Amino acid sequence: MNSEIKNFFYPRSICIVGASTKEKSIGYELLHTISNYGYKGMILPVNPKAESVLGYKCYRSIEEIKDNIDLAIIVVPKQFAEDSVDELLKKNVKSILLITAGFKEIGKDGEEVENRIVEKIKSAGARLVGPNCMGVINTLPEIKLNATFVAEKPETGSTGFFSQSGALGAAVLNSLRETDVKFAHFISAGNKADINENDLLRFWQVDQNIKTLTFYLESFVNGENFLLPFIKGEITKPVIILKAGKTSGGMKAASSHTGALSSMDKVVDASLKQFGIVRVNNIDEMFNTAKGFENFSPPKGRRVAVVTNAGGPAILTVDSLEKENLELAELSEDTKKKLRTVVHPEGSVNNPVDLLPGANAETYKKVNEFVAADENVDAVISIFVEPVMVQPFDVVESVYDVKTDKPILQVYMPLPEFWDTYRRDSKKHLPVFRNPEDPAEVLSNMIYYSESKALMDKHRKEYGKILTGENQFVENKYIFGKGFLKQNEIDIICKDYGIPIIKNELLKYDEIRNLNNFIYPLVIKGINKDVIHKSELNAVKLNIQNKDELLKASDEIKNNFTKYSFEVEDFLVQPYIKLKHEVLIGGFRDPSFGPVIMFGTGGKYVEVICDTAIKSAYLSDNDIDEMINSTVIGKILNGVRGESPCDIKKLKEIIKSSAQMLIENNNISEFDLNPLIISEDNSIHAVDIRIKWE
Amino acid sequence: MNSEIKNFFYPRSICIVGASTKEKSIGYELLHTISNYGYKGMILPVNPKAESVLGYKCYRSIEEIKDNIDLAIIVVPKQFAEDSVDELLKKNVKSILLITAGFKEIGKDGEEVENRIVEKIKSAGARLVGPNCMGVINTLPEIKLNATFVAEKPETGSTGFFSQSGALGAAVLNSLRETDVKFAHFISAGNKADINENDLLRFWQVDQNIKTLTFYLESFVNGENFLLPFIKGEITKPVIILKAGKTSGGMKAASSHTGALSSMDKVVDASLKQFGIVRVNNIDEMFNTAKGFENFSPPKGRRVAVVTNAGGPAILTVDSLEKENLELAELSEDTKKKLRTVVHPEGSVNNPVDLLPGANAETYKKVNEFVAADENVDAVISIFVEPVMVQPFDVVESVYDVKTDKPILQVYMPLPEFWDTYRRDSKKHLPVFRNPEDPAEVLSNMIYYSESKALMDKHRKEYGKILTGENQFVENKYIFGKGFLKQNEIDIICKDYGIPIIKNELLKYDEIRNLNNFIYPLVIKGINKDVIHKSELNAVKLNIQNKDELLKASDEIKNNFTKYSFEVEDFLVQPYIKLKHEVLIGGFRDPSFGPVIMFGTGGKYVEVICDTAIKSAYLSDNDIDEMINSTVIGKILNGVRGESPCDIKKLKEIIKSSAQMLIENNNISEFDLNPLIISEDNSIHAVDIRIKWE
Repeated sequence: MNSEIKNFFYPRSICIVGASTKEKSIGYELLHTISNYGYKGMILPVNPKAESVLGYKCYRSIEEIKDNIDLAIIVVPKQFAEDSVDELLKKNVKSILLITAGFKEIGKDGEEVENRIVEKIKSAGARLVGPNCMGVINTLPEIKLNATFVAEKPETGSTGFFSQSGALGAAVLNSLRETDVKFAHFISAGNKADINENDLLRFWQVDQNIKTLTFYLESFVNGENFLLPFIKGEITKPVIILKAGKTSGGMKAASSHTGALSSMDKVVDASLKQFGIVRVNNIDEMFNTAKGFENFSPPKGRRVAVVTNAGGPAILTVDSLEKENLELAELSEDTKKKLRTVVHPEGSVNNPVDLLPGANAETYKKVNEFVAADENVDAVISIFVEPVMVQPFDVVESVYDVKTDKPILQVYMPLPEFWDTYRRDSKKHLPVFRNPEDPAEVLSNMIYYSESKALMDKHRKEYGKILTGENQFVENKYIFGKGFLKQNEIDIICKDYGIPIIKNELLKYDEIRNLNNFIYPLVIKGINKDVIHKSELNAVKLNIQNKDELLKASDEIKNNFTKYSFEVEDFLVQPYIKLKHEVLIGGFRDPSFGPVIMFGTGGKYVEVICDTAIKSAYLSDNDIDEMINSTVIGKILNGVRGESPCDIKKLKEIIKSSAQMLIENNNISEFDLNPLIISEDNSIHAVDIRIKWE
Repeated sequence: MNSEIKNFFYPRSICIVGASTKEKSIGYELLHTISNYGYKGMILPVNPKAESVLGYKCYRSIEEIKDNIDLAIIVVPKQFAEDSVDELLKKNVKSILLITAGFKEIGKDGEEVENRIVEKIKSAGARLVGPNCMGVINTLPEIKLNATFVAEKPETGSTGFFSQSGALGAAVLNSLRETDVKFAHFISAGNKADINENDLLRFWQVDQNIKTLTFYLESFVNGENFLLPFIKGEITKPVIILKAGKTSGGMKAASSHTGALSSMDKVVDASLKQFGIVRVNNIDEMFNTAKGFENFSPPKGRRVAVVTNAGGPAILTVDSLEKENLELAELSEDTKKKLRTVVHPEGSVNNPVDLLPGANAETYKKVNEFVAADENVDAVISIFVEPVMVQPFDVVESVYDVKTDKPILQVYMPLPEFWDTYRRDSKKHLPVFRNPEDPAEVLSNMIYYSESKALMDKHRKEYGKILTGENQFVENKYIFGKGFLKQNEIDIICKDYGIPIIKNELLKYDEIRNLNNFIYPLVIKGINKDVIHKSELNAVKLNIQNKDELLKASDEIKNNFTKYSFEVEDFLVQPYIKLKHEVLIGGFRDPSFGPVIMFGTGGKYVEVICDTAIKSAYLSDNDIDEMINSTVIGKILNGVRGESPCDIKKLKEIIKSSAQMLIENNNISEFDLNPLIISEDNSIHAVDIRIKWE
């Protein structure tokens, strides 16, 4: 395990540079919180003017400290931050937490200082968390470190919680007593000048105290680097991400906030989804899901039984099941028979099982036992609305006493008094959800995770070279000029990658007039590297039957170009393919996530129709199937209404090799095959290809 | 105002039939709750065996009561319910609340009793709430009636809250002290045997104590009847609906629960959206939105300023703005100048305005004043994450002191202690939201409401006959047989409604051989009323150029039918139209919401492409525009990539008259024009029409 990172969570000694005697100052509150939570190691405050702070002997300078410093926390004003770092490095401190703000996030001056600090840290072989952050927490009893300025006393759990925003971390910490969120480690990463999500992903994967990883992120420092360990199968714990800055407005806010550069949200979404990373939509879903992973075994399937004493909330739960693509389990006759012995005769023994308001702890326990034992059931949601005549505490305890390896998630809608009782007296203290929609969301995230993991394991080998760590880039295989590739360059690279480019002839206006060996029918297109949407300029003429038509077409195209002040650089002559379907394969290099591939309906309406699937170009065969099947054109190609399917195998090969072309050729910033024509005889032809080289 | 319904909320006297001396029984708890909440009227308990209950003199029978009974509440066991109703009607009681369960919801026997009771109620000119419900509440100080068995003391508000589920009502009541939900009236409607959402919609519209109407529904008793007052402009208050049973599973659960028959969710969704009814997704959104309407003036536009002391939560807010189709306001230079005088120099005076954690009540107040005064701002969201050094209570109060007619919604992420302080000490006690995503949802719902209302007012006259109350059905205009209409019947009705049906000739196999006056190119189709998807049987041959091809085509179609054991009843011969686009117009009669119309991409892939908009057939011109513009084909028809637009005016006329045909002809259960061909010369032709007559 990386000991520099380990020391942020497991330090035997901490030095607080800038400890203060002044209440409400960060230097005071931080030390107070550390002391108050009961840190088990040695505390070494530094303050040039104080003898002691909060009873701890105070050092006048870092130099004065003779003890070993596992972790240094800097809370001095920003103008002294760099000096503090210098002194710490001089003392060979390897783990530095820089809480002080006023660096990259405030502009160029701040950025310069930040860069200088990072450089020094790196050359010293040290690691830095921050700047502009709110600290770290380790709740484990052998450490008990709350090095933040929120003086709450978090309970011990097994989640790692990484927050790019200090305030969001603070908001979560503020609400701990109401939300019953528990974690093992918390880290506020601030500007992520050095340590970022990529470090914590790898650190928590090997830390045995962490079962689930949660990240609040406003940007990915290097998305491709975040994905690679998932692709290689190195991450075996559930990873949950709340990625803010989804929209262009949010991204603008994120940028001014921590100077983050966000990728397009649909790239983020597609990339996380492809590799089994759970993306959540808000803080509640993040921690509910973490609670799910930590407290319940993952359901083996999607069939859920709902137990309730109340109709309405159960219907909301059922709605949420279908929204989350789960199923209402069909209970076996045997289960129903057993249920009839305990359920009120006017209740229901069908799923949702309605016990009516009179149901007590004993009934709840038996009913949950019966449905959980049913082999048609993979998970149970047990709902309780507090009626006049039944004690809620007994019910929740009795249900969590049911012995089963299937998850039982409880929803409680009680009077407010219940929560205190439960927190104080519950033996197991398992999560109790507040909204009838919560458990379905949690179960769905858990199932998505298990299924993705299983699928990726099954298809692992298909990721090929990436797994072996071989450099995936083929350096300088092609020497092309920058900009859109010329037709002859396109011909070369497409041939290498097996992209079925249609036979092309590039001719000048006069050549068309002089040549006589054309095979009809044919297509003629006007080419100018600055003209992207050829149909708008009427630059394409289809199904030309003879020389007369060809001459006329070339004249028309020439005129159309002139109208828009363009010149026809070349005419492209191709055989005319009788079109059945038009598809699109495209790709680009995302600044954070690297190569990304697209598939969907092609043709001239492509921007209006928006029938496109995107994924990271690191594709398994299964990913390609998913891309095809998630589009309308893919469904049509697979054969609908009695039509025979197209050559899907060939299509998959083309998608795979296009992705490979993008991965291997670092110079390609974007490309598209639009349209890729599927002809009436089921052959596939790329008739229009653009590749941008950088 | 309807006095029978009024008496459920404003009774001067209530009789409790089945009052009990036994604690935890409904008959006891109900009376206890009524007494405990401080009901201002007269309480008349009936119990044959008790002298008094909870200190109230008890009557042995209903007959014995000499006082006038404004409202009777029945809580006797179900076998005595009908007798109680009989006696109450004998005493001329007009408002009866039947809490007792065990009727329609438990099966046929229960349904029979329920039907009998309803019949008696109706012939006596009385009204019934329930059965199988949990009562009513009126929080207004002059009444103070909590006739439920949840012994909470709800605060006075101005919302009407209708719950089809008693338990959901109970869950909301249980949580009142945590959610700060306030309302004026609550009614649990149970099985809705008599009084239902249609009654309360009209009652609350005229009740001056109600500003906002909220409904939790599992079904609409008569959706069309619910919509009509909106179409007529009779409903002028915001109506918020949480409709559960969205999915087929949820509908099944809803049915077993109160015997409700739900409509397809997309019909519900489209109908509510069309007429300015706010549909929400969960309980939180319902009450947050009601709080919005009651406490803030509706924003005049979509430009929102965000004020914050914390980056992360503000980014989540900005994400939610864009999700809800709101905009981040562009602050004026003048505002930024003013902000610079109070915002920390390292904070941000751009939107989101970041005050940094040190910002106190004074700063928050000034900043909110400045941004609310900016003419580029329509609404403000002010976020506060509790830091160490600032008192949250002062901030929330100071911001709610800002004088402005624009809505300022506050998000608080404080330590738990804050909430009690705020509830106890706040002067205005305006809503404080807990999640950074909440206010955007609320603002968006408020804007949707104002915009829909304005649009409907503007287009009101276009609803035509419906407004005048004229019977919209044309009785017996056509005498057709049941089932799919024959070609000649289709010709008649389409001609009447101006649907541009293509010239058709119905011919037998031999006739085709004998006739010679065909105009080519033409289309030939095989017809059999049981064959719906003609293309699957290869029953359509296009672009026939001469007699030879025609004979060959008719033979092929005949053979194809035989292969699938069908017979060609007729051949349909039509001119061949050179197709540019295929659209679909269809419609059906929803069991609850009545006539519904669809528009979208037509042709044989229609089920796969799923590019369809649906709306109630009560269409304004604006609705038709919205339908067209919300589909991909609509966007293409409007002209993309330099293409000239199609004849949208004509298309709109056809949609309007198709809708009229459906509205006026009660016998049409469904119809579709698929495809409606738009030809290369921009003419429109219905080439395949099916109308089902019942």
